[in-house]
Amino acid sequence: MVVAKLQFRGTPLALLLLPMVLLPLGHSLIHSVPFQTVQDCTKKQHFDISRMACRFCGDHQQKSKDGTSCACQPGYKLISNKGGPFIKCAKCPALHSAVTQDGWSCIRCPHGVILDNEGKCRCPVGYIMVERHVNGAPLQQVQCHPCSKSSPSFTMPDHSAKHCIRCHETFITTTKSCDCKSNVLTGGLCFHAHPKTLTTSVVTNIIYSKNLKVSSAWFVSHLKASAIACLRFANLTACQALGNMCVMTMNSINSLIPYNDACGLYQTIFKKTIHLGISHSINSWRKTLPWLYYDSHIDGLPSRILHQEPFQTLFHFKSSQRMELQFIVARYDVRGNFLNWAKATGGILQLCPDTLTKLNAAYIFGLTYRQQCTLPVSMLLSKYRAIQFYDLYVLHKGEHDDDQLHPVAVRNLNLQYNGKFVNKDDAENDWYLTRRIFLVDTLAGREDNLNRQPKVIRVANDIKIRINLVPNSLHGKIFPPVLIISYVNIKIQNPEEQTVPISFSVEYKMDLSTANQNTEIALGFLCGLSTICSMLKTASWKRRIGSQMIDIQTILKFLLFYAGDLANAFFLVTFGTGLYWLIFFKGQRIVSVLLPTPSQEVHFIFCVVSAFALKLLQLLHKLGIQLTVDIFFIDWERPKGKIVKSVAGGGDIKTAAAPVSIWRTYFVANEWNNIQTIRKINPIFQIFVVLFFLEVVGFANLTSMSPYSNFKRTAESDVVPPSRILRFGMASGIWLTVGVIQVVFCTGIYERFVEDRISQFIDVCSISNISVMIFSHRCFGYYIHGRSVHGHADTNMEEMNLNLKREADNLCGQRGLIPNTEIETFQIFTTSKIREQYDKIREPIHWSSRSDQLLNHADDSYERKMKAYNTTNKFLGSFIDHAIHDMDYIVQDKLLLERIIGMELHEPIDKTIFYNDEKLSFTDVLYYGNESTLLIFDTLFFCVVDLAAQNFILAAFLTYVQQKVIQFIRLAIGRKNLAIKTLVDERFLL
Amino acid sequence: MVVAKLQFRGTPLALLLLPMVLLPLGHSLIHSVPFQTVQDCTKKQHFDISRMACRFCGDHQQKSKDGTSCACQPGYKLISNKGGPFIKCAKCPALHSAVTQDGWSCIRCPHGVILDNEGKCRCPVGYIMVERHVNGAPLQQVQCHPCSKSSPSFTMPDHSAKHCIRCHETFITTTKSCDCKSNVLTGGLCFHAHPKTLTTSVVTNIIYSKNLKVSSAWFVSHLKASAIACLRFANLTACQALGNMCVMTMNSINSLIPYNDACGLYQTIFKKTIHLGISHSINSWRKTLPWLYYDSHIDGLPSRILHQEPFQTLFHFKSSQRMELQFIVARYDVRGNFLNWAKATGGILQLCPDTLTKLNAAYIFGLTYRQQCTLPVSMLLSKYRAIQFYDLYVLHKGEHDDDQLHPVAVRNLNLQYNGKFVNKDDAENDWYLTRRIFLVDTLAGREDNLNRQPKVIRVANDIKIRINLVPNSLHGKIFPPVLIISYVNIKIQNPEEQTVPISFSVEYKMDLSTANQNTEIALGFLCGLSTICSMLKTASWKRRIGSQMIDIQTILKFLLFYAGDLANAFFLVTFGTGLYWLIFFKGQRIVSVLLPTPSQEVHFIFCVVSAFALKLLQLLHKLGIQLTVDIFFIDWERPKGKIVKSVAGGGDIKTAAAPVSIWRTYFVANEWNNIQTIRKINPIFQIFVVLFFLEVVGFANLTSMSPYSNFKRTAESDVVPPSRILRFGMASGIWLTVGVIQVVFCTGIYERFVEDRISQFIDVCSISNISVMIFSHRCFGYYIHGRSVHGHADTNMEEMNLNLKREADNLCGQRGLIPNTEIETFQIFTTSKIREQYDKIREPIHWSSRSDQLLNHADDSYERKMKAYNTTNKFLGSFIDHAIHDMDYIVQDKLLLERIIGMELHEPIDKTIFYNDEKLSFTDVLYYGNESTLLIFDTLFFCVVDLAAQNFILAAFLTYVQQKVIQFIRLAIGRKNLAIKTLVDERFLL
Repeated sequence: MVVAKLQFRGTPLALLLLPMVLLPLGHSLIHSVPFQTVQDCTKKQHFDISRMACRFCGDHQQKSKDGTSCACQPGYKLISNKGGPFIKCAKCPALHSAVTQDGWSCIRCPHGVILDNEGKCRCPVGYIMVERHVNGAPLQQVQCHPCSKSSPSFTMPDHSAKHCIRCHETFITTTKSCDCKSNVLTGGLCFHAHPKTLTTSVVTNIIYSKNLKVSSAWFVSHLKASAIACLRFANLTACQALGNMCVMTMNSINSLIPYNDACGLYQTIFKKTIHLGISHSINSWRKTLPWLYYDSHIDGLPSRILHQEPFQTLFHFKSSQRMELQFIVARYDVRGNFLNWAKATGGILQLCPDTLTKLNAAYIFGLTYRQQCTLPVSMLLSKYRAIQFYDLYVLHKGEHDDDQLHPVAVRNLNLQYNGKFVNKDDAENDWYLTRRIFLVDTLAGREDNLNRQPKVIRVANDIKIRINLVPNSLHGKIFPPVLIISYVNIKIQNPEEQTVPISFSVEYKMDLSTANQNTEIALGFLCGLSTICSMLKTASWKRRIGSQMIDIQTILKFLLFYAGDLANAFFLVTFGTGLYWLIFFKGQRIVSVLLPTPSQEVHFIFCVVSAFALKLLQLLHKLGIQLTVDIFFIDWERPKGKIVKSVAGGGDIKTAAAPVSIWRTYFVANEWNNIQTIRKINPIFQIFVVLFFLEVVGFANLTSMSPYSNFKRTAESDVVPPSRILRFGMASGIWLTVGVIQVVFCTGIYERFVEDRISQFIDVCSISNISVMIFSHRCFGYYIHGRSVHGHADTNMEEMNLNLKREADNLCGQRGLIPNTEIETFQIFTTSKIREQYDKIREPIHWSSRSDQLLNHADDSYERKMKAYNTTNKFLGSFIDHAIHDMDYIVQDKLLLERIIGMELHEPIDKTIFYNDEKLSFTDVLYYGNESTLLIFDTLFFCVVDLAAQNFILAAFLTYVQQKVIQFIRLAIGRKNLAIKTLVDERFLL
Repeated sequence: MVVAKLQFRGTPLALLLLPMVLLPLGHSLIHSVPFQTVQDCTKKQHFDISRMACRFCGDHQQKSKDGTSCACQPGYKLISNKGGPFIKCAKCPALHSAVTQDGWSCIRCPHGVILDNEGKCRCPVGYIMVERHVNGAPLQQVQCHPCSKSSPSFTMPDHSAKHCIRCHETFITTTKSCDCKSNVLTGGLCFHAHPKTLTTSVVTNIIYSKNLKVSSAWFVSHLKASAIACLRFANLTACQALGNMCVMTMNSINSLIPYNDACGLYQTIFKKTIHLGISHSINSWRKTLPWLYYDSHIDGLPSRILHQEPFQTLFHFKSSQRMELQFIVARYDVRGNFLNWAKATGGILQLCPDTLTKLNAAYIFGLTYRQQCTLPVSMLLSKYRAIQFYDLYVLHKGEHDDDQLHPVAVRNLNLQYNGKFVNKDDAENDWYLTRRIFLVDTLAGREDNLNRQPKVIRVANDIKIRINLVPNSLHGKIFPPVLIISYVNIKIQNPEEQTVPISFSVEYKMDLSTANQNTEIALGFLCGLSTICSMLKTASWKRRIGSQMIDIQTILKFLLFYAGDLANAFFLVTFGTGLYWLIFFKGQRIVSVLLPTPSQEVHFIFCVVSAFALKLLQLLHKLGIQLTVDIFFIDWERPKGKIVKSVAGGGDIKTAAAPVSIWRTYFVANEWNNIQTIRKINPIFQIFVVLFFLEVVGFANLTSMSPYSNFKRTAESDVVPPSRILRFGMASGIWLTVGVIQVVFCTGIYERFVEDRISQFIDVCSISNISVMIFSHRCFGYYIHGRSVHGHADTNMEEMNLNLKREADNLCGQRGLIPNTEIETFQIFTTSKIREQYDKIREPIHWSSRSDQLLNHADDSYERKMKAYNTTNKFLGSFIDHAIHDMDYIVQDKLLLERIIGMELHEPIDKTIFYNDEKLSFTDVLYYGNESTLLIFDTLFFCVVDLAAQNFILAAFLTYVQQKVIQFIRLAIGRKNLAIKTLVDERFLL
């Protein structure tokens, strides 16, 4: 309680806020405990592991070495120790003033032997200390014995200097004693000062960079010894240790001057031991030496090494049983001891810690893998205190179903050959391939003392395993993988705050030259087709505008057509490519294709962007045409007669022609305005459905560079990057599929059974007794025949409904232009004469807008306009009625060829031609008739945004905005155009 | 080359496909190597670490112990070993037939001493073997010495049986020799057979489950010894070891019968050592013993322990410097040695491996954390070979800024108190809190032999750290955390295939009773308001339908109104709550609120779902009203006179009233049809913008249970689950914000400067000389006055345009109903008489549809309909013209009170009242006037889908579908209703 109260003394607020704390006085509180560590205890204290606090030791006692118990002070022996809190010590008598090693007895030190800090005797170097007889009986005085170095004993004191043990074999063979005498003593070994021994000095400095040179303590003590032991005795661990040191210096070689660094020594020994033969028929694998290098002189050039004998294993992709690329490492410690064979799974080669699933995903065959993290240097220092070396192999089945190991070549980007980083270039044959790697080297960078913190550490900051598929392989064969490694040197300054970015990736690559060639052929062919197509279109256009000359406008038009056709060609090729990869990569069971790597994708991206740009051009062109189309509503209604009006003033009777109500025209114009941007698909629904499939159902998850299909986001998704080609293939595939289904649904079901706005429009034309004449080109256009079968439409509800009823009951004629036909829609190809006449009549309509401001006689221009309107109405009505003698027309069907090439073969010379058009091609001047262009444009827009941002939701959002903006422009300008051309006030176009 | 060729022999296809492989004959291939391991080598072979293959050893040699080198056969001594591939052995002479321990010499075994398998001498147990003199000189014959057990030597042979060392202190104190004799020898210690010693047998069986009982080898050898050493000598490590064994048995206690299992022994010792006092004033922490239990008798009940003294530390959330909850563990090994203090970061308590960032995110204050994985048992077996025990503390600053440790209580769900799992219940005060935990125990489950595989392992499969905020804390104070742990027993059968699911979570909790109370008060208040509101609405409705009685229909109507108002109340409360948590949780810098945990969210979810259901009811009700509204278009146009027609047959002249064209009515009706579902916001744009903000900008990432705000998905996002309340708050907040901005933009900017469909409609009414009469209730409705100021509208374009121009130039009167006013829209409150008259006139219109089929005189009904139409037109026209004497009306402004309560105070007795209505309240029968209902409904729909699926994209998709479906229904039925009520043929409603 007291402690609790004391704790609160400083915080009266807390006391007020929490009176409950102090209420149940019967119990004490569970409160905090001061934090003390072993280091906090003074020399007189020990750390009580039960109470977690420092406590004073008894008299004559002090902290033990580990700090968790007490020990007797020097000169005091232990007389009781029950492992409890207290021990007991007693002073040693003056005669036996030293304490034995076990601390329980006092003993005398012999003459000339001094007491150490702990109050124990210490014999001179080379002597052993004896405190007991052989049978355990204690001696009165410590005995210091020299070990007998000569034959037959050959002994030296052991590490603890308590017993004599046999000295190292090298001493005995060299000198027949345990004294190296004038021979070469290095690294604890003794060698003859033989001329063939490497007696010259060796290079023990490691040059990390220009300004960073470390005299490595490890190299100082072990390099020469290993080299000599390896060369002289073919000592296997010594050879491995030498090899390891070479690897620690990045396998760098200086072939010009003989240079006695680790790799130089390795090379020297390699040459000198040629008589020992090679292992496993591999020329650069000397029997006694570790295999470090691929020698291009004796093994062949790197390109041959990397593209030789493929594995016999056939790789397949089955979701049920994922195939693993089994990497096996032989692990060595720095002293050259072979530790074990280990599978690379479980993150042996991966410095970044992660979940097992994610780590092991690296070795699932076919999975492009990328793992990245940033590690604190302090963590590397503590975790990789011991450096390990790895020889990497791939385990595969041999011919006889036996386990075979294929060595994996290493391309160390930091390797210097005569001071040049040969492996950094892409020139394959300049590479110097090696074998052995390490991940973190915290040893070589230690100066002076191996127990001190290193000055520099070397970390494998980027490891990439690249696997190449055998070209034209239909059997899933691969070339041996290559491991690309790069190291970074970190000068240790403040390990707690220093960090190092690490990455590990696995890349699958195949030779795409054939695929690219095929793409190019397809593209070339399609471009040729487009050219022809565009030329036909231009020719058709020339005819339709009634012009013959080839002028700049023609060339421009050709280019515009060409843009559209080229866009289609590009789109077709990219779409095909995307779909190809999607289907073949995701669908294959035996590996035959691998995805293009990001660098191989550039060509593809270029195609997609080109297709988009060209398509945009085409769309703008089409919009331009639509927004300037010439349209007129022909009112067939004739005044019903004269009107008799009684004038208020007198009893007079006046007559005037009954005016024909304009409201039917308004109605039809409004309706025409409303169908401007009707499409065969619902574009919003399109976006939502695509988004639904991609993001909710999870098709987006199929675009990862994994041959296995999974609709759900899995742990692996984090480490398997998405492929842009697959994203394009998936997005465009779904977009087009949904689009086509919508079009089919719309034309096949919705328009038939629910609502067809286009047919409704034609219907309304008929009912309202109004025809529509549209000129999309100068001499070419469309005609919708809307003459009412009842003769009149401008009437009251009673008659209207009667008329409708009569028509429904088939009590009247058919609506067609030619009697007894039903065809109401036509393409028209007029003679120039008609068009000239038409333009002449309508002239006032067009200059009005400009002259209004200039001449300021609005009324006049307004009257002229009205007159022009009436004249046009009359003129076109007469023309359709065959009433104008020299401007007659004939109605005919289009030829099949004409339909196919989209060009009329006969030019109208003196008679205008009306082509029956049941396909309602007048919708070409609306959104409705250009569904394919719009659909492909939307697809490309969606995909281009996604390629740039890798975000389907953003793409959907921007596609929506794009659609709305273009639609708004189309509607606004289209409405204005309609108002100008038909003289219907904009207020009636709602 | 030979090997390479041989390899290809079996695959002629490969030879054909890849001739390049064999072409450069000058070089050998790098081919595969057979995979051999140390285990593959026979007894005569060793594993050559250089060649990675098994090689035969020389004569008289065999595989060494580690398999990577050769050793001499028994009876052969080593004569040369350079560490290279070869050693040399020589047979020992018959006289010295044994080999020394170092293998280099031959020696004679003394009489009675046998040779072991390795051909070395082996002295009897209790003897040491001596091969050399003290100074290293070899002996001719091995000497076997017994160690002197008695005073003053007190020695026994050491582990290697080469030297005599001092025996354990317990032997010496107990027997004054190194022989335990008749005393109690257990666990390598010797104790007096003292009555106070725990001489009785101890329970060394561990009962994992009913059918799984293991006689633990560890317990057999250490339980008794630790207990005695702890009790007798207060040996600290022994006490810790005993404590550890108690922890290994889940701290389970049997208080009824004294039971000598680990925990029973611990309790016994705890009671017997009361005289030793306590540590740190904590009653249940005996000085010499590890602290294992919180004793509710002496420490207080668990509820007190968990809700006492909060930390002095004030917790804050600053993105720049995230505050860490510093957990510190004291680590012990199984023998009771204290290892070190360690921070819990770096995954010490987390079995699932993961990246450092993700592991450490668990201890960032305020971050609700959940990590899960499934681990293979084999991995646990190899990684957790040594069991470690942890005492958990929280490090915090004390009053004097000193480091303090607060012990963390453990609630072990597997603890049994008298055979009952007391900690599994929620009854806090029944809990038995403990202290020490372990993660994986692979030791206790070993039977017979400690080196054998365990029979059972125990794994902490679910660890949860729960942190409670001090209620009403404005200073970020927390109660001490509690760790909830649960273990699972795994019977080892096939460790390679067995797996165990692991989870680790951190949960922050605060007492929400105040918050809940506030919510309930708010809800209660709002419900009261809604009741009043709904009663007013019902009263208003009763007046408007001109009924006085309270019947079932009235009650139903009341309930429907009530549903709507309640929905608003619920929505307001949930929206407020969501926003509250979002703002206060995410915005706080000093911790004052913590998010509700999933179990605390249930109430909230219920409110949201209720709000949605009620809102749906309201929406359906409103739609029902809109779809049955009574509407009529009054055509003011009068025939222009009589028409003079020349009849074809003769010269007669006939006259008839000129028919008034119905097309203006069609135009207006069509327009009315088109504005049915116009809204103040663009619902699609709404969805896309919301989705954009949530998923692209990244507001969705703010909904994680982390107090730190990050728009990007980070590594932590995987381990920090989202909060449903935050998701609701975020989604509804963004939805409403975007909605309100859209409404403001629409009414303030778009409608003023671009396009206002409603005004356009009124405009069109005026221009077309048509008024609209709408009855939303029996006696209540709206009137849009559309009488043309020009008197006529049914005319040709010339006159129409002239009229428009005159109006634009202000050359004619104003459009209002009352001369010289501009007000065209009115609410009308008619007398019952008018309505009766109206219904009577229109009767034929309604029975037609039914009687058609029955009576089969369609023509007749059709004529009647037409007649009714004309009569209605005339009747309403006369009414508006004040032409009917007893059905007059007055025009007045609505009172402010009337506007506020939405009810008319004066009932029309004999004169109909026209209220000026500049707010265009006739849009109440359209979508346009119900924007708030629709917006809230959409918000709720979006949020409810998201609450169910936790997927904003799906919610967006379904909201879109919902909108389209309801809109489609509204449009289709609305169109039908319009056609029926106005007799306009559906074909004109496009």
